[in-house]
This record gives sequence, C-alpha cells and structure tokens, in this order.
Amino acid sequence: MTKIKSKYDLFRQKTQIILYGTNTFLGRMFDLVLLGLILLSVLLVMMDTVEGINHKYHTQLLICEWIITVFFTIEFILRIISIQKPIKYIFSFYGIIDLMAILPMYLSIFFPATNVLTIVRVLRFFRLFKILHIPQISQQSIQLREAMEASKEKILVFIYFVVISAIIIGSLMYVVEGKESGFTSIPMGIYWAIVTLTTVGYGDISPASPLGQFLASLVMIMGYGIIAVPTGIVTAEFAKSSLKSNSISTKKKCSKCHSQVHFDNAKYCYECGETLPD
Amino acid sequence: MTKIKSKYDLFRQKTQIILYGTNTFLGRMFDLVLLGLILLSVLLVMMDTVEGINHKYHTQLLICEWIITVFFTIEFILRIISIQKPIKYIFSFYGIIDLMAILPMYLSIFFPATNVLTIVRVLRFFRLFKILHIPQISQQSIQLREAMEASKEKILVFIYFVVISAIIIGSLMYVVEGKESGFTSIPMGIYWAIVTLTTVGYGDISPASPLGQFLASLVMIMGYGIIAVPTGIVTAEFAKSSLKSNSISTKKKCSKCHSQVHFDNAKYCYECGETLPD
Amino acid sequence: MTKIKSKYDLFRQKTQIILYGTNTFLGRMFDLVLLGLILLSVLLVMMDTVEGINHKYHTQLLICEWIITVFFTIEFILRIISIQKPIKYIFSFYGIIDLMAILPMYLSIFFPATNVLTIVRVLRFFRLFKILHIPQISQQSIQLREAMEASKEKILVFIYFVVISAIIIGSLMYVVEGKESGFTSIPMGIYWAIVTLTTVGYGDISPASPLGQFLASLVMIMGYGIIAVPTGIVTAEFAKSSLKSNSISTKKKCSKCHSQVHFDNAKYCYECGETLPD
Amino acid sequence: MTKIKSKYDLFRQKTQIILYGTNTFLGRMFDLVLLGLILLSVLLVMMDTVEGINHKYHTQLLICEWIITVFFTIEFILRIISIQKPIKYIFSFYGIIDLMAILPMYLSIFFPATNVLTIVRVLRFFRLFKILHIPQISQQSIQLREAMEASKEKILVFIYFVVISAIIIGSLMYVVEGKESGFTSIPMGIYWAIVTLTTVGYGDISPASPLGQFLASLVMIMGYGIIAVPTGIVTAEFAKSSLKSNSISTKKKCSKCHSQVHFDNAKYCYECGETLPD
Repeated sequence: MTKIKSKYDLFRQKTQIILYGTNTFLGRMFDLVLLGLILLSVLLVMMDTVEGINHKYHTQLLICEWIITVFFTIEFILRIISIQKPIKYIFSFYGIIDLMAILPMYLSIFFPATNVLTIVRVLRFFRLFKILHIPQISQQSIQLREAMEASKEKILVFIYFVVISAIIIGSLMYVVEGKESGFTSIPMGIYWAIVTLTTVGYGDISPASPLGQFLASLVMIMGYGIIAVPTGIVTAEFAKSSLKSNSISTKKKCSKCHSQVHFDNAKYCYECGETLPD
Repeated sequence: MTKIKSKYDLFRQKTQIILYGTNTFLGRMFDLVLLGLILLSVLLVMMDTVEGINHKYHTQLLICEWIITVFFTIEFILRIISIQKPIKYIFSFYGIIDLMAILPMYLSIFFPATNVLTIVRVLRFFRLFKILHIPQISQQSIQLREAMEASKEKILVFIYFVVISAIIIGSLMYVVEGKESGFTSIPMGIYWAIVTLTTVGYGDISPASPLGQFLASLVMIMGYGIIAVPTGIVTAEFAKSSLKSNSISTKKKCSKCHSQVHFDNAKYCYECGETLPD
Repeated sequence: MTKIKSKYDLFRQKTQIILYGTNTFLGRMFDLVLLGLILLSVLLVMMDTVEGINHKYHTQLLICEWIITVFFTIEFILRIISIQKPIKYIFSFYGIIDLMAILPMYLSIFFPATNVLTIVRVLRFFRLFKILHIPQISQQSIQLREAMEASKEKILVFIYFVVISAIIIGSLMYVVEGKESGFTSIPMGIYWAIVTLTTVGYGDISPASPLGQFLASLVMIMGYGIIAVPTGIVTAEFAKSSLKSNSISTKKKCSKCHSQVHFDNAKYCYECGETLPD
Repeated sequence: MTKIKSKYDLFRQKTQIILYGTNTFLGRMFDLVLLGLILLSVLLVMMDTVEGINHKYHTQLLICEWIITVFFTIEFILRIISIQKPIKYIFSFYGIIDLMAILPMYLSIFFPATNVLTIVRVLRFFRLFKILHIPQISQQSIQLREAMEASKEKILVFIYFVVISAIIIGSLMYVVEGKESGFTSIPMGIYWAIVTLTTVGYGDISPASPLGQFLASLVMIMGYGIIAVPTGIVTAEFAKSSLKSNSISTKKKCSKCHSQVHFDNAKYCYECGETLPD
C-alpha cells in the first residue's frame, strides 16, 4: 500500500517538474509543445470563424479541436494532481483560463448554440498571456514595464482629463450637429469625440454643418497638442531610466583634486591622474 | 430677535462647513454625494438623448431629473445663504454653472422646445470640472500642468504656424480638386487640411484627382514631420523637470540668504557661501 | 526745381519710415492696419467660394474686394517709390506676392473666367507669411526654428526612407489587391501606402482581400514603430537645446577644491564655500 | 594567346573599376547613369499601370522598357564577367534583384499573362535599395540606424505585446459586433484592432452597436497611451546618443592602454592614469 502511494508520489513529483519547471530537458520540451498547441488552438478558433474555411474543412477543424481539447484536459488534470495547493490553482487567473480552454468542446455536446460557445472559446485566447511569461521575453520587457509603471499615475490623470473633455465635446457636437449627420445621441457624440481626439478618425460619423466642422477643427488641433502629453511622460521616464544606467555618475570622488564626475568604471581621475576608490 | 438671528448664523456657519469644507466627516460625505449626483445627472442627460431608452423609460428619467434638480436647487440656495459674498459667487464661473444645472427643468415648464433645452442642459456638464478639483487628483496633476504651462507659448506659436499652413494648403486643394470631390469651398478645404495634418483622416472628403492625391501625399509626409514638434516640446519640458528633480532640489534652504534651490550634496550656499544644513 | 525734388524726397523718406519701420507710432499703426486688411482679404476670398454666401452677398463682397485692392495698389506703388532698390523689391518673394494680391481684380475686368482668377487670388494668401514676421512671434519661434533646422538633415534622410518604402509597399499592394478594391494603379497604391504609413487613414481605398489586409496590418505595425523616429529626432534636439540653456554648467571651477559643476550664476562653491570667478 | 588573355584581363579590370568603384570619374558617372535608369525604370512600371497613360503611350513605353532592359542586361553580364566570385554575386541579394530587373521583358516574349509579369516587374523596385547605398546619404543615416538598432529589441517586445492585444481585442469585438457591421470573422476583427490601435482608422469596418462602440472607445484610449511607448524608446535612445556626443567623445585616445572614450576635457586616462594628448 505504501509502495503504491510512493509510486504515485514519484509520479506527482515527476509531473510537477515537467509541467512547472523549465530547467530540465523534458520541462523545456513540454513548454514548447504547450506553446505550439496554444497557438494552434487560437488559430483553429480563428479559422473556424472564417466562413469559406469553415464550410470546406469543417470535419478536419472539429477533429483538431477535439485532439487539442483532450491534450489540454489531460494537462489540466495533471496540473491539479501534481500541484501542492490544487484549490488555489483552480480559482487562480490561470486556473480559470485553463478550464476555459477545455470547457467549450464539452459544452458543445449539450448546447448546440454556436454564439455562446464562441464567446467561451475566445476566452481561451487569454492563455496567450502565458506565453508572455517566457523568460527570454520577460527579461527584455522589465525595463519597458518599469517605465510604464513609473508613468502610470500621470497617464491615468491624463486619461481622466481626456474622458471628461470627450464627454463635454461630444455633448456640444450632439447639440450642434443633430441627428442628420450621425450624432444620434450624446453617447454617440462622445464616441465621435474619442475617435477624433485619439486621431483614429474612422469617418463613420463626421460633422456636416459648417459650425460642426469648425468645432471639429478646434478639437483636432487641441488633440494634436494633447497627444504629445502621454508621449512626453513615457519618454521622460525612459530617458531618466536610461540616463541612470548611463556610465557617468558622481559616486566616485578624487581625493587629490576633488573632481566628482567620473565614469562608473574609472580607476584613475581624468583630471589629475590620481587613483580613484572602487 | 437676536436669538433667532444667532440661530440663523449658526445654521449658516454649519452649512458653510458642510458645503465648502472637506475636513469634517459631513463635509466629505457631502462632497461624495454631490460627486455622485453630478455624475448621475450627466448620465441622465445622456440617456435622455438615446431614442430607445427615452421611449421606454421616459417617466422614470423625468422623475430622476426632478429629484436631482430639487437637490441642486436646495444646494444652490444654501450656497448663496452660507457664503460671505453671495453676489461674487453668483457671477463666478461655478456660480453660473450651478445655476445652469437647475434652470433647464424650470424652463421646461414654460418652454416645451426640446432643442434649446438640451443645449442648456448640456452646459450642466461643466460641473464635471468641479470633480477635477478633488484634492487627490489635483496633487498628481500639478507636474502635468506645470510642464504644459511651461511649453504653452511654444505650442501656441506652433499651432499658429499649423493654422496658416492649413489655410494655404486648403485653398490650394480647393483650386486643384474642385467641387466634384467634396472640396466645395475654401473653408471646406481648410477643414480637410486640418483633418489631414492632424492625421485624423475621416475620409468624408478626400482627393480624387491624381494631382490632388500627389499634393495630399506631400501634405501627409509634411504632417508626419510636423507632429513631432509638439511632442518634442512637451517631452523636453518633462525631461527637464524630471532631470532637475534628480540632482537639484529645494530640500536645503540657506539660513542667511534664503535661497532655496541647491545641489542635493551641497555643503555651502552657492549664493552667499553660508554653511547649509545636511 | 530742387525744392520740389526735396519735397518729393521728404515724402519718400516719410513713406519709407511708415511702410518699413516699426519703431514710430505711424509705422506700428500701418502694420496693424495692413495685418487687418490682409486677414480681411483672405476672409473675403474664402467667403467668395462658399456658394450660399456668394449668392446672397455678391455685391457687398465685390465692393469690399475693390476697396482692399485699391488700398493694396496704393501700398504697392508707395513701396516701389520709397525703397532704394525698387527693381530688387519687385522681383523679390514679397514683391511678387504683393503684386499677386492686386492683379486678380484688374484681370477680372478683362477675363471673366472665374477658375483661373481664383488660383491667382489664392496666391495672395502667401501674404499671410508676412504676418509670421511680426517681431513678438518671431522672437518666440526662434528656438522652435533652431531645433527644426538642427534636425532637418536627419528628417530628410528619414523622409527619403519613408518614400522608398511607400513606393515598394504601394506596388506590392497593387499586385496583391488589384483594381476591384480601388488600387487601380501603382501611383494609387503609393498614395494608399502614404495615407497608411502616416496613420491618416482616409479609407477611400482600403484592402479587401485577406492577403491584402494581412499585408496592410504589417505595414501599419511598421508605421507604428516608424512614426517614433521623427519625434525622437526633434525631441532629442529640443532636449539638447533646453539642457544647454539649463542653469548648470562646467564653466566655473573652484580654485580651492577644484569642483567643476556649478550653477551658472553661482558666486560661491557649494562644496567648500570658496568665492567663484565670474 | 597570352596577349589576348591579358587584353581580356585588362578589360575586366577596367570594367570592375567603373562598375564597382566610386573614386574615378567614369565610376561616378556610371553610378549616376545607373541611378537615373533605375528611377526611370521604376517610373515606367508605374506609368504602365495607369490605364489612361497605358492606352495612349503603349508603344513608347514598350520601346523605353526594351532599351532599359538591354542596358540592364549588358550591365548584368559585365558585372558577372568582371567580378572575382561571379557565383557568389549571382546568388546574393543584389544579384537576384539585378536578374529580376531584366527577366520580365524576356519572359514577356513567351508568356503574355500580364498579371504574373507585373509581379516580377515590381520586384525590380528593390533595386531602389541600391540607391540607399549612395555614400552621402549613408553617412547621414548612420546615427539614425544606430539609434534604431539600439532600441530594436525593446520595440520587438512592444510589437509582440501589441499583436497579442490585437488578437484578444479583435476576437472580443467579433463576438460583440457580429457579422452585420463588417466583423465577419476573427481575423477581420484582428485587422480592425490593428487599424484602430495604430490610429490609422480607415473606417471600412467600424463598430455599430453601443457595446461595440464603448469597447472601441476603451481600445482607442488604450492605444493613445500605447503609441507613446515606441516613441519614448526611440527618443530616449536619440537623446542618449546626442548627450553622449556632448561631453564624451572618442577624440582622445590613450597611447598606453588604447582606451578611446574620454571626457572632452580629460587630461589623464581614466583607465591607466596615462597623460592624454590635448
């Protein structure tokens, strides 16, 4: 009895190393296979929505879908078995996403309604975020994330200002333009204001009256100046962090001539030739 | 008689603390309720313009509208009563806006014309600016405002240059394209030029002749280089203020000459030579 | 005879001071009047192209037009008379523009063809550039111009790269998309590529085939990275010039402790309290 | 026999100097002629696709096309003859491009199918990249290329993030909007997401339902903040390289340890303490 339990424990241990570890060969291989299957499953859902492809290859898509679902199901069960705190995993973000990845196919046996199914299947796409955690990419994106986090607060205040501006501009345009030129309600006007301020400019709604076009011109020129703000915030943050990592600093000081600005790796003072402290 | 007056004075005093103060519990609560009601009233005006919602919930919207109007009316009267200089308040920006927030409903009893009414009701949205004065957001937005104010003059000169360019480009395009492709007048051409230079690009008017498309291409590439300018101005300002806060600060203050801006590692005042505190 | 000549000389001298000078009261007044009349004449040409206004106020517009033309004619003649080298002025940029401003009305007596006339009248708009030379604005725009001139060469190389990219992308899209979806020729494809790379995006031509939309997506993401380049160039230039004008430099050096980085207006060394040289 | 061979060798040598060299007068002249002919051939292919021009000048275009093809053929043969390693050249990027430039006309004798031909002819445009190697432009573009290469990795991570975002946003919009408003499949939704995130905004597909427009507004505001990131990266890189070239340079070189990067005002090598030249 103990033997069987220890065998099961060994199996659990091995599974955990393969599923969660990235240092062993099998662990790395598994990560790559999983990565490929996630991308494939995303591609399958995409293809499924293209009418031409769906008509021609319906059976092939369905078979692929079932194979992937079975693989993901086994992976999900193994994860639950091998982890220390299975309950915590199941209700974590990735636990729910992993369940989302397998549920749709089993649900499709009972519910033939395609639209609801598609919504659940699309949620599977969030597994893509797992790929973001590949170490190589993570390492390079640290500086990116730091600069964005440092400027997060200012950007939020800025977005708050843009949203209030959009509400007021959208309402004014609704009053000025009226229903004939697409501004059917104030929310529609706000949608137009955001489309314009962000310089996207679909053109599905656009001012038709001279006054409306004049106001729109003012909004666009305002948006022109405004778009500089988030860029300025992020850039200043990048420049700061990249100057910090720059090789000049005032950390070292020459004991003879007291000059203070040196290369970080300088051994001698550039001014008097004196040996610098480490 | 004096007793009644003092009671009234006490009431005025209490009201003032609640309406204008933010330090007491009641004052803070009142601010939150007011914030919620302003957002609700804005939402109500929005919903009112959506045809589907208006048809279904006309009575409910009207009732909500009246409740809010009554609350705003009481608030407006209390503000006039409790403030020291009521005349100054009534003719101030927020005084007029606060009046705007309650007028439309009372006017709607006498004037059934919906369009004029909507214009006045939308003016109520400017109360949203009051929300901008919430201390937490104000604190964070100081650096934003400073950087924008420092670059204001340069951005104005830049906008002035863009407007003159838009006038000349718009006129040329009117001559080149003519009335068939939407360039019905020079103001229309200028509207197109602004839509293009700001990279909004609705597509409601777009060049159709080969020469017009060639000129438009030149304008777009020009606009490509031009959009960099406001960004450059604002970014340089941000970078400057964030570099300044790096090695220079106002932490140290000279006790002799009261100069406040020093290097962080300064030991002596650069102005008078006095020893600085650590 | 000499008397008359000297009277004429005096008249010339006085005229010159008024027309070209900006220091006397009359000179400044004349500049303001001219500025107003140029703006008015531009407004008149604009109004003239708007059909509704033209129909209603045709006679009034014509009268205003003639009054301005007569004023500009007198100004032009006085300029030729009062200047030292009249030939040089006539064939200079502003000389030709000034002539352009008065010619259309006189030509309209002989040629009733409106289209040719409008072209010449629009050229008058270049007089607006004269307004750019108002001293107040010029002073503020110097830094702007310097930063743009410093980054001119790099932006030209960048535009050159964008144009070649647009040619290759436009040709590929012409081959991929074909005539059905608006890509009627390679120049049309290049026009589309520029509209897309600059993120203007009119939507008058847009890819319809899956392959075309895939290529377009690549182009847009490429353009996303590319738009950062001119901004980066200009911003770096602004930051450089604004750091230069910053108040810290290595110009002053303490004779006692040899520390080198000081405020430009520092009188004492922040390190040792020694008096600094000017 | 040896004489003939040496004559052939002399011819090869001379040809090589003209074709590959840029220091002799003939070499430079040849480069200019080649440049002109490449531009002309590109122009010819363009003109050929414009229906109006093709109809009118079909024969003239064909003659020009043949003249250029014959010139390019002779050039191609001479290049193969004169170069040391002809096989390496033929299979190099420029070798294949050079062959592409002449093949279409010879193929047109046997295959009259115009569409396939156009594709091959357009590939000739890649010869334009050769123009990029003109020394004057190359010199100015070095700093540009360096800054872009330095920020390449970060921009790739950023684009990777944008693509994953586009996939998830596009899928959600497909589910929300459905087929009526143009979101016919998930790939179509992704195409829309890229068009929106990059602020191009064609408007060929745009959300029509209130929920879709609300989601689109969120995406646009998100894209607003996102567009700042590549700009920030490139700008920080430019600013860094331009600050570096300010006070630090490679003008001085240590004669002892051969380190090259020093402060402009350095007197001693920071690495080994050796005296530096002025």
